[in-house]
Amino acid sequence: MKIDGTHYRSIWFDDADQAVRIIDQTRLPHFFDILTLSSLADACHAIQSMQVRGAPLIGATAAFGLYLAAREGHSDLPAAGKLLLATRPTAVNLQWAVDRVLAEIADTDDGDVHRQILETAQRICNEDVTHCTAIGERGVGLIRARAKEKTGPVNILTHCNAGWLATVDRGTALAPVYQAWEEGIPVHVWVDETRPRNQGASLTAWELVKQNIPHTVISDNTGGHLMQTGQVDLCLVGSDRTTYKGNVCNKIGTYLKALAAHDNKIPFYAAVPVSSIAWDSDEVPIEERHNEEITHIRGLNTKGELDTLRLTPDGSDAMNLAFDITPARLITGLITEKGIFPATEEGLAALKRQVTGDR
Amino acid sequence: MKIDGTHYRSIWFDDADQAVRIIDQTRLPHFFDILTLSSLADACHAIQSMQVRGAPLIGATAAFGLYLAAREGHSDLPAAGKLLLATRPTAVNLQWAVDRVLAEIADTDDGDVHRQILETAQRICNEDVTHCTAIGERGVGLIRARAKEKTGPVNILTHCNAGWLATVDRGTALAPVYQAWEEGIPVHVWVDETRPRNQGASLTAWELVKQNIPHTVISDNTGGHLMQTGQVDLCLVGSDRTTYKGNVCNKIGTYLKALAAHDNKIPFYAAVPVSSIAWDSDEVPIEERHNEEITHIRGLNTKGELDTLRLTPDGSDAMNLAFDITPARLITGLITEKGIFPATEEGLAALKRQVTGDR
Repeated sequence: MKIDGTHYRSIWFDDADQAVRIIDQTRLPHFFDILTLSSLADACHAIQSMQVRGAPLIGATAAFGLYLAAREGHSDLPAAGKLLLATRPTAVNLQWAVDRVLAEIADTDDGDVHRQILETAQRICNEDVTHCTAIGERGVGLIRARAKEKTGPVNILTHCNAGWLATVDRGTALAPVYQAWEEGIPVHVWVDETRPRNQGASLTAWELVKQNIPHTVISDNTGGHLMQTGQVDLCLVGSDRTTYKGNVCNKIGTYLKALAAHDNKIPFYAAVPVSSIAWDSDEVPIEERHNEEITHIRGLNTKGELDTLRLTPDGSDAMNLAFDITPARLITGLITEKGIFPATEEGLAALKRQVTGDR
Repeated sequence: MKIDGTHYRSIWFDDADQAVRIIDQTRLPHFFDILTLSSLADACHAIQSMQVRGAPLIGATAAFGLYLAAREGHSDLPAAGKLLLATRPTAVNLQWAVDRVLAEIADTDDGDVHRQILETAQRICNEDVTHCTAIGERGVGLIRARAKEKTGPVNILTHCNAGWLATVDRGTALAPVYQAWEEGIPVHVWVDETRPRNQGASLTAWELVKQNIPHTVISDNTGGHLMQTGQVDLCLVGSDRTTYKGNVCNKIGTYLKALAAHDNKIPFYAAVPVSSIAWDSDEVPIEERHNEEITHIRGLNTKGELDTLRLTPDGSDAMNLAFDITPARLITGLITEKGIFPATEEGLAALKRQVTGDR
């Protein structure tokens, strides 16, 4: 998407410098910094520290990580893949991207390996953009239909960041919003701040500012009341892992919003690239992150510097789970690049047939 | 309750100095400062800025505010009452306390008015302590019963602060927890941080640290997952206004936790002093506070000073609603000083008969 007139992806290969570049998402929304990933270790660190995050972008970064590993001369690329997999356990795209890269190089002549992985990584990125664009085109119909029924903007609530920064470009949950805005459909986005890392307040809000899309940041506690009082038309969230049963693992707190949507008969959709579906298992490992993300918070101080404040008293324990699971029964549908499917075992099976048939 | 060995209330009259004192709750948990309220304006400011907060404590502060107004020589005490009422619209105790004071002085000789209001304010405080203690004694049975069914501590989730800092002493939702702990029943409290003002992370956590009660601070997004995975035995929350139909207005986000409790068949109780019940109306004004509480956050910097950080990007709107309404159908029961009642119109009517009969 464009930032102040220039088009960016969240990760890209700079041909001139033969360098992998990312936007450092830990410094947004206050600073826009571009980083270079030069090694497997850089790629692992970028995923672990959440300089890059979001299931599709993590997958793309892992593919570039294997490219960097090969370029560095790592002889055991499956071992490099395991290092990447260990960085974050929940997103299925990480496994998907590593498996894909390793499968494609199985029969490659050693000298060409890093070139071939680079091509695969770039293909993964381009496909992700195509898929996210398709999710936008599939999902915009929901917004268009609601816009025809009412006056004023369609009010969309989203949780965490499933925008273009979570993918290579366009986003998943926000792709239909961008599509609607570009088509002239009036929209307004309720942005859950999404504690503890505030990806809503920092990343989703920043994305929407840069695209001039009307939005309002709210505390994570607020969405239920907005739904009770008719101020939400549609909920759109991303998914880090969707199981073959239609259960959606997404940022912690998603389940609470799905409950409120269900209680108030508001449509609740997850935007799900096929690459984030776990076809074989309903098990979901829930990542537990450092509790300093709860006890402390980062932001911009009055001197214009990033700073950290302590929130809790000495002596208090804290716990920091990153994801929860929204049961399929609370989900109106899954917006994929292949169309909108019911969040049921049958719906996923139909999607799988379509994916397989298209190959 | 005791703080490092010394017993405190959250508001008190210092006879030696003839001064109204409060604990400045805007500086907890990092600094424990005692403030003196010297005027009606001081009392209004303390409520508005949330140096004092919590429905019962707001009521007590309003009573002292009228005492200070009379002592300053304000001739129009009903007008002073209106100033106090305008500070925060949702808590019914504010109206209740102002009405009670004004009714009691209706026939008083002018010269004695401030003395009489002081006595009423002190009586309101003492009654609040009695009522909160009774809520603890009524509610502890729920914890005791659960403790008998399981091994390990009873896991109680609470939202915001309904501890002794929200009342004059003992608390509402936390009163049964304190009672259980004093009786030797093992408990562990999940503390919702409660954005935007973080009364959970700052006040509830601090209270529990000072009483040595095991607890864990979590983001507001986390409780649903904990309930899905069997890690919550009981939810206990406060109430700023309970309507005669049993609907509970409490800190924003309470509704989401009640939905999760209902979805997972976990008991969800509100602790409700009779003074916070609106007997005549089901209307609840929802206070909207300044959106800087969303866009910025306060905490302790590395120099040990209170500081403020910006969280959201320039150009993002924010909205800050302070309360939501949990419908009666999601509430297992109301713990009052008169016993535990169903959150139904019939339950409230039975409670009202008991209150009237006891007078």
